[in-house]
Amino acid sequence: MAISTPTISVADVCLATKAAAGPLAALGSDVKDRALLAIADALVARTPEILAANALDLEAGRANEIGDALLDRLALDPQRIAGIADGARAIAALPDPVGETIDGHRLPNGVDVRRVRVPFGVVAVVYEARPNVTIDAAALALKSGNAIVLRGSSSAIHSNRVLAEIAGEAATAAGVPAGAISLVAGGGREELAELATQDGVVDLIFPRGGEGLKNALKAVATVPVIYAASGNCHLYVDASADLEMAAAILLNGKTQRPGVCNALETLLVHADAAPEFLPRAAQLLHGAGVELRGDERARALAGPGVPFGAATEEDWATEYLALTIAVKVVDSREEAISHIGQYGSGHSEAIVTRSTESARAFQLNVDAACVYVNVSTRFTDGGEFGMGAEIGNSTQKLHARGPIGVRELTTFKYLIEGTGQVRG
Amino acid sequence: MAISTPTISVADVCLATKAAAGPLAALGSDVKDRALLAIADALVARTPEILAANALDLEAGRANEIGDALLDRLALDPQRIAGIADGARAIAALPDPVGETIDGHRLPNGVDVRRVRVPFGVVAVVYEARPNVTIDAAALALKSGNAIVLRGSSSAIHSNRVLAEIAGEAATAAGVPAGAISLVAGGGREELAELATQDGVVDLIFPRGGEGLKNALKAVATVPVIYAASGNCHLYVDASADLEMAAAILLNGKTQRPGVCNALETLLVHADAAPEFLPRAAQLLHGAGVELRGDERARALAGPGVPFGAATEEDWATEYLALTIAVKVVDSREEAISHIGQYGSGHSEAIVTRSTESARAFQLNVDAACVYVNVSTRFTDGGEFGMGAEIGNSTQKLHARGPIGVRELTTFKYLIEGTGQVRG
Repeated sequence: MAISTPTISVADVCLATKAAAGPLAALGSDVKDRALLAIADALVARTPEILAANALDLEAGRANEIGDALLDRLALDPQRIAGIADGARAIAALPDPVGETIDGHRLPNGVDVRRVRVPFGVVAVVYEARPNVTIDAAALALKSGNAIVLRGSSSAIHSNRVLAEIAGEAATAAGVPAGAISLVAGGGREELAELATQDGVVDLIFPRGGEGLKNALKAVATVPVIYAASGNCHLYVDASADLEMAAAILLNGKTQRPGVCNALETLLVHADAAPEFLPRAAQLLHGAGVELRGDERARALAGPGVPFGAATEEDWATEYLALTIAVKVVDSREEAISHIGQYGSGHSEAIVTRSTESARAFQLNVDAACVYVNVSTRFTDGGEFGMGAEIGNSTQKLHARGPIGVRELTTFKYLIEGTGQVRG
Repeated sequence: MAISTPTISVADVCLATKAAAGPLAALGSDVKDRALLAIADALVARTPEILAANALDLEAGRANEIGDALLDRLALDPQRIAGIADGARAIAALPDPVGETIDGHRLPNGVDVRRVRVPFGVVAVVYEARPNVTIDAAALALKSGNAIVLRGSSSAIHSNRVLAEIAGEAATAAGVPAGAISLVAGGGREELAELATQDGVVDLIFPRGGEGLKNALKAVATVPVIYAASGNCHLYVDASADLEMAAAILLNGKTQRPGVCNALETLLVHADAAPEFLPRAAQLLHGAGVELRGDERARALAGPGVPFGAATEEDWATEYLALTIAVKVVDSREEAISHIGQYGSGHSEAIVTRSTESARAFQLNVDAACVYVNVSTRFTDGGEFGMGAEIGNSTQKLHARGPIGVRELTTFKYLIEGTGQVRG
C-alpha cells in the first residue's frame, strides 16, 4: 500500500496506484469478493488496533476543541467497526459491474461491436471526518475494479491510516495487486491541489464533504470531478392529491432525517388543495418541531393555530438541512414546476396527485436526478434503490446522476471483432 | 433565434437558449423529425442565399491569405449543401434517444424505479472552419432534444449565420421553440471564455477543432467539456497473425485516410512474425507513399529494399496524421500491450491474431475507447457503428467514450412511482 509521507509525494502515490490499476481491472469477481470478505474479517480481528489509533484522533480532537458533533462522527467503537465490516460484506454480495455487456450489434459487414463495462482505472475519494468512508470507498472501488487514492481529513489521520493499512494488507493477501488502495496522508490544501491535477493518472475524483471542500476542488481541479451538490427538494401537493398521503409524505420527507440531502425543504400546495391541506399540514409540522416560513397566502390559509413566519426570497433557495420548511401556495401545476425549475438543485422532487395528467407533466418537465410520484423523496439513496452502498449522490448530468454506486464507478469500452474487415 | 451581437452578450444568448430547452425537451419525436426535414428542405431551397454568404467568407479568406486547404474547407457549393441537407434527413431517420427506459425495477416496498433517457438541456459546440458543422451539430442537438449554442470561427461567420438562421426559422415554423438554435457570432477568445463559464445555463461543451482550441477551453472552462483527444492508434501483429489479413488492415489503417484520428500511427510486430511480415509490410507501405521510421530490429528485418529511418522516442508518441508510420518489433503480446499503455491515447487499438488467448488478453488489457480484433481501426466512427452522425470521438472516460452520437447527447433521470410509500 502506498501512503504519502514527507518523502513520498502525492504524485508518486498516484503513480504507484496507477501501476496497480491495470492488473486490478482484469481481476475476476471471485478474487475481488474474497478480498472484500478478508477486509471485513481483518477489521473485526484487528479492532483493538483500530480503537487505539482512533483514540489518538479523538484525543487530538478534544485538544483542538473540534466539538461534540465532530467528535461523535470521528469516534469508532467495536459496534461501529462491525458495521463497517458488514458494509464491506454487503458490497462483496453485489453483482460485479465489470464485464457487463451494455449493448451490442453486428454491422452489415459482419463486424461485431459491443460495449462492455470496464473500471475507470484510478479513482480518488476526498472526504471529511468520518473514518468509515475509508473502508466504504475502498470497498466500492475494489468491487468495481478501480484502484483508489483515499484522502481523508487530518483530524482522522490515525484512524484512516490504520484502516487503509488493514484493507490494503487483507486485499493484497487475497490476490489484489499491492498499491490498489492508497492513502494521501497530508490533509492540507496543497496535497489536495496536487491530487486534483494528476491528469492521465487519476481518472476521476469524488469529493464527500461540505461546500468548502467542493469550492477548494473547483478552483484547482483539472482531473474530472463528480460533485454531489446540495438537495433543495420540493414536495408539490397537486389539486387532486390524496391529502392523507400528502401529509404522510410531507412529514416523512421533512422530519425523518432532516440533515440529509434528500430531505424536503419546500412545500408547494395547489390553491385548490390549500384551504383543506394547509391547516392540517401546519399543525402536523409544528407538532413535529418544524419551523414554518410561508408566503402570504399560505400563512393566511394555515390559520392562527401555529407560528408561521414570512418567507423571504432567500428561503426558496435555502437547503435548511434542519427542522425548517418553506411553504408556498401555487395556482397551477405549471407554477409549481416553474418554481422548482427556478429554485431546485436538481436532486429529488416529488408530486402527490391522483391525476395521471399531473403526474406525467411533473415527470416530463421537472429537471432533476429523481422525480417522484406519490413517494417520499427520502428514497433517493443507493441502498434504497437496490444498488448497494453509494459513494454519494450526483446532481450533475454528466456520467452519473442520482446515487453513485458500483455501476457508476465504471466506464465502458467498445470491443470490436471481425475477420479482417477494412473500410472501403 | 438568438445571435450574439455587440449589444447582446454571450450570457444573454445562453439564457435565451436555456429558456427554449425545457419545452424542447418535452417535444415528441414527430415534431423534431418534421423540423429536421424542414431544415433540409430549406437548405436546398435557400441555396443561393447560402452561397452568397459563403462568397463573402471566401473573399475575406482570400484577402487574409488563409491558404487553399482552409479555403477548401470553408467553401460551399450546391452539391455540398445538398449533402448537408441529406445529413439532416439521415438524423431525422434515427431512433429518438429521448424517453428510452434504460433500466428499471420494482423495490420490495412496491415502488417502481426506472431510468429514462432525457436531454442534457443546453449543449454548446465550438468549432473551426467547416460551416457544415453548423447544421450537423444543430441537427444532432435537435434530435436529442437539446437546445444548442453554436460558436463557429470568425472566418466562416457569414456562412454560419445564414445556415443557423435558416435552421432556426425552419425549426420554429415546424413547432420547435424559438431560441432552440443559437449562434455566438463573435469568434474571439473572450466570447469563448464567456461561453465556457455559463455554469447552470450551458450543460456541456463539445469542442471540434485542434489542440489550440482545446487548450484555450481547458484554461477557462468551468462548464463540463467533453474533449475529443487525438488518436495515436496502434496495430499489433501477433505471432499467430494471418499475415495477409495483417497487411490489408495495416494498409487500410495507414493509407485509406491518413489525416483522421482513427488512422494508424504505429505498427508493432511480434518477433516471430517480423521476419516474414516486415519486408512485405515495408514494401507495401513504401509503395503507398508511406515514410517508415523503425527501431533497430524492424529496420534490419525489413531488409535493404526500402528507405526506413530510425525512430526516436518522439515517434512513439506522435500522431502523424500523415503518410508516416513508426514500426517496432516486440518480443511478446505483453510488451505490445505495455507499449500501447505507455504511448497510446486511448482511441482505437487493434490486434491481428489467430489466437483466442491473444485476442482476449488484448481486449482485457488495452485501455482504449475501441479495441479491435482482426478489424481495421478505421471503423471508429458513429456512422460506421450504426449510431448515425457523430459530433466527435471521445477519448475520455466520463459519460461518453468513442463516437458521440445522439445517445451520447443525453443524460437520464430516475422516475419513481408509488402509492404513498415513506421511508421507515
